[in-house]
Amino acid sequence: MKLKTEVKSIPELMNDIGIAARKAARELAGSEASRRDEALLEAAAAIMRRSGEIIAANEKDMEAGRSRNLSAAMLDRLALDHERIEAIAAGLETIAALPNPLGKVLAEWERPNGLKIQRVSVPLGVIGIIFESRPNVTADAAALCLKSGNAVILRGGSESFHSSGAIYQCLLDGLNSAGIGSKAIQMIPTTDRDAVGYLLSSMSEYVDVVVPRGGKSLIRRVQLEARVPVIGHLEGICHVYLHGSADETMAVDITKNAKMRRTGICGAAETLLVDEAAAARLLPVVCGALVEAGCEIRGDEAVQRLVPDAVPATEEDWSTEYLDSIISVKVVPNISAATAHIAQYGSGHTECIVTSSTDAAEQFFAEVDSAILLHNASTQFADGGEFGMGAEIGIATGRIHARGPVGAEQLTSYKYVVRGTGQTRP
Amino acid sequence: MKLKTEVKSIPELMNDIGIAARKAARELAGSEASRRDEALLEAAAAIMRRSGEIIAANEKDMEAGRSRNLSAAMLDRLALDHERIEAIAAGLETIAALPNPLGKVLAEWERPNGLKIQRVSVPLGVIGIIFESRPNVTADAAALCLKSGNAVILRGGSESFHSSGAIYQCLLDGLNSAGIGSKAIQMIPTTDRDAVGYLLSSMSEYVDVVVPRGGKSLIRRVQLEARVPVIGHLEGICHVYLHGSADETMAVDITKNAKMRRTGICGAAETLLVDEAAAARLLPVVCGALVEAGCEIRGDEAVQRLVPDAVPATEEDWSTEYLDSIISVKVVPNISAATAHIAQYGSGHTECIVTSSTDAAEQFFAEVDSAILLHNASTQFADGGEFGMGAEIGIATGRIHARGPVGAEQLTSYKYVVRGTGQTRP
Repeated sequence: MKLKTEVKSIPELMNDIGIAARKAARELAGSEASRRDEALLEAAAAIMRRSGEIIAANEKDMEAGRSRNLSAAMLDRLALDHERIEAIAAGLETIAALPNPLGKVLAEWERPNGLKIQRVSVPLGVIGIIFESRPNVTADAAALCLKSGNAVILRGGSESFHSSGAIYQCLLDGLNSAGIGSKAIQMIPTTDRDAVGYLLSSMSEYVDVVVPRGGKSLIRRVQLEARVPVIGHLEGICHVYLHGSADETMAVDITKNAKMRRTGICGAAETLLVDEAAAARLLPVVCGALVEAGCEIRGDEAVQRLVPDAVPATEEDWSTEYLDSIISVKVVPNISAATAHIAQYGSGHTECIVTSSTDAAEQFFAEVDSAILLHNASTQFADGGEFGMGAEIGIATGRIHARGPVGAEQLTSYKYVVRGTGQTRP
Repeated sequence: MKLKTEVKSIPELMNDIGIAARKAARELAGSEASRRDEALLEAAAAIMRRSGEIIAANEKDMEAGRSRNLSAAMLDRLALDHERIEAIAAGLETIAALPNPLGKVLAEWERPNGLKIQRVSVPLGVIGIIFESRPNVTADAAALCLKSGNAVILRGGSESFHSSGAIYQCLLDGLNSAGIGSKAIQMIPTTDRDAVGYLLSSMSEYVDVVVPRGGKSLIRRVQLEARVPVIGHLEGICHVYLHGSADETMAVDITKNAKMRRTGICGAAETLLVDEAAAARLLPVVCGALVEAGCEIRGDEAVQRLVPDAVPATEEDWSTEYLDSIISVKVVPNISAATAHIAQYGSGHTECIVTSSTDAAEQFFAEVDSAILLHNASTQFADGGEFGMGAEIGIATGRIHARGPVGAEQLTSYKYVVRGTGQTRP
C-alpha cells in the first residue's frame, strides 16, 4: 500500500494489475470451492484478530474526514467500531456458507444427432469494483467475487483509503492461508483519480465487467467514460402505489415501513401514488402516520386538500431520490396512470402495489418495468439478503446480464459443453 | 426510405427513432405472443409475395457493388435469388414456431416470512442491430427481436441498402397485418456513418443493448465508440486439438469437417493442435485429407517434418482467422500446452478436443475458457440452429449477459415479482 505513482505511471501500474488479475482469474476458474471458502473464513478470522489495526486505520480516515468537513452522514458511513468489524467478519462467513455458484448445469439437452449439450456456470473472469466511502464494501465485494471464482480489482474512495487498506490486508491473509495467490484480490494502491479513468477506458483486455457502487456522480462518470461492460446501479426512486381496493392497515404499515424504516437505502420509497377513489379514505391516515414518524409530505393539489401538513410538490420532486425523511405524494385517476407515472419518473429499481385485488396486482406486475415488483409488501425488502440470495454487491437497475440483487450467482457467466461421438456437420 | 439528412439532422433523426422505439418497447412488452408470431408469419408471406420487388432492389445493390469493385465473396453475400428469398421467409416461419421466451418463471421460491418470489423473463427493451452486407440479417435479426418482445433499430451496411429496405417493407406489412405498431421495427433511413456513431455514443437513454454483427472493423468501431451496453461478437479463431488417444478416423473426419465444410463461417477451425506423442500417427493422414480437400497447411517445424506439403507458420498465423482454405498446425507436448495455446491465441469462440479419454475431455472442458467446447464433434456445430435454439443473431464471445449462440431466449432480461400478504421489514 506504499506504492506511489512517482514509481510507476498510472498506465504501467494499472496494466500490471490487469495482467496479474487475468492470470489469477484463470487459476481461480480451476480452483476448488472448498479452498475459496477456506480463504473467506480465514479472512474473517484475520479481521477479528486484527481489529485493533483496522480501528487505528479507520481513525486516520475519520480524522482526515473531519478536517475535510465531511457530512455527519458520510462520517457515519465511514466509521468502524468493534460491532461493525464483527459484522464484516460475519458477512464473510455467511458468503463462505453459500452454495458454490460454479459448475452448475443450468440446462442440458440432447440433439437428434446424439450431441449432448450442457450449459454450465463459470466465473465472469476479472471484475472491477469502484466504490465510495463504506469500508465494509472492501470485504463484501471481494468476498462475492472470490466466492464466484472471479479475480477482483478493488478501488475504494479516498475517504476510506486506510480503513479499506487494513481490511484488504486481512483478505490477503485469508488467500495466503488457503494457498490462493494474492493476485486474486487486488486493490489499486493509489487514490489518483486517473486510475479510475484508466480502469474504465483502457482495460477492456483485462477487465470483463465493472461494478460501480456509489452515488450519482460516480455513476455518471462510469456511464461517460466506460469502454468496459458495466453492471449498472442507478438510484432507487421507488414507488408505493395504493390501489383503490387497498386495505387501510396494510396501506399504513407498508407505506410507513417502505419510507421510514431506513431512509438512506436505495430500496426506500420516495413517492407515494394513491388512487383518486381511495384518496379521501387512505391519505389522511397514511400521511398522518408518516408525519407522526417525522416525515415531510410534498403533495400535489389533491394531496394538499386532504393532508393539512403537506407542502406543494414541484415537478422535480417526482424524480428526486431523497434518501431522507421526505416523500412526494400524488393522487392518480387509476392504475394505468400510476404505471405511466412510474414509467416516466421511476429509475427501474423497486415498486410496490398495495391492493386487495389479485387482478390489479397482476396488471401492475405486467405493466411496470422495474427490477423488483412487490404486491402487499414493503419496498425495503429489495435486498439480496431478504431475497435469500446472501450478500449482494447492489441492486442492478440495468437490463443487461443481471437485474435486481447482484450476488455471487449473478457474478457468473456460462459456457456450453458438448459431448459427441464423432459427429460431423452434414 | 427516402428521408435525407438535409431534412433532419442526425441527432434529431436518431432521437426521434429512439423515442419511438422506447414507446414501442413498452407496448411490445405487454403484447400477446400469438400476435407477435402472426406478424412474423405475415411478414414471411409478404416476402414471398413481394419477392420480385426484393430481387429488383437487390439488383440495384449488386450493380452498385460491381461498380465499386466489391470482392466476389462480398457480392455473393449480398446476392439474393428466389431460393435465398424463400430461405429468408422460411427463417421467419421457424422463429414464429419457437416457444415464447417471455413470461417464463425462471426460478421461484418462498421466504420464511411468507414472501413468494418469482424471477420472470421479460424483454430487454430496445435493441440496436448494426450489420454489414448480408441482407437476410434484416429479417433474421428483426424477427428474433420481435419474437422476444423487443423493439429493434436496424442499421444495415450501405452495400445492401436497397435490398434491406425492400425486406424491411415486408416486415412492416407483417406488423401492420397483426395490428402491431410500425415502430416495433425501425430501420435507420440513411447510410450516413454518423448515424452509427450517434447510436453507439448518445442513445443510452433509448437503447438497452447494441448487437454488432460484422467484421473486425465494425467490431473495433463499436468497442471504441460504444457508451451503450454491447453483446459482443468477436472473430472465431477456433481450435481442433487432437489428444494423444484420439481415434484416427475421428481425427480425420472431424478436422476435415471443422475446417473445410464451410470455411467462411465463424465456427470454422483455424488452428489444429496435435499431441507430440500422436503426431507421427495422426498428422500425415489428417493433413493428407486436408490437402486433398484443397487446404493449405501452415505448420511449425515438427509439422513440416511430418507433412511434406506444409509451409512454415509465422507467429501471426496463430491469431489469424483465415475464413479460407488455410489451417495453422502446431505440435504440442501435452494437453496443458494445448489449453495454454488456446488461452493465448484463441478468441473465446469454439474449441474441440478429439480424444478417447473421458478424463482428457473433462480436463479440456475445465481448463479452456471459450463459449463452446466440444468433445469428439466438429466445431461447425457452433450454430444456434444446430444447438436446437432456432435462429441466432450470432455467437457471442463476450462474457456478459449472453455467451455462445444469441437467440430469442438470450434477448430477454428478467424481473422479480414478489407476492406478499402485508409484510414489512423488521
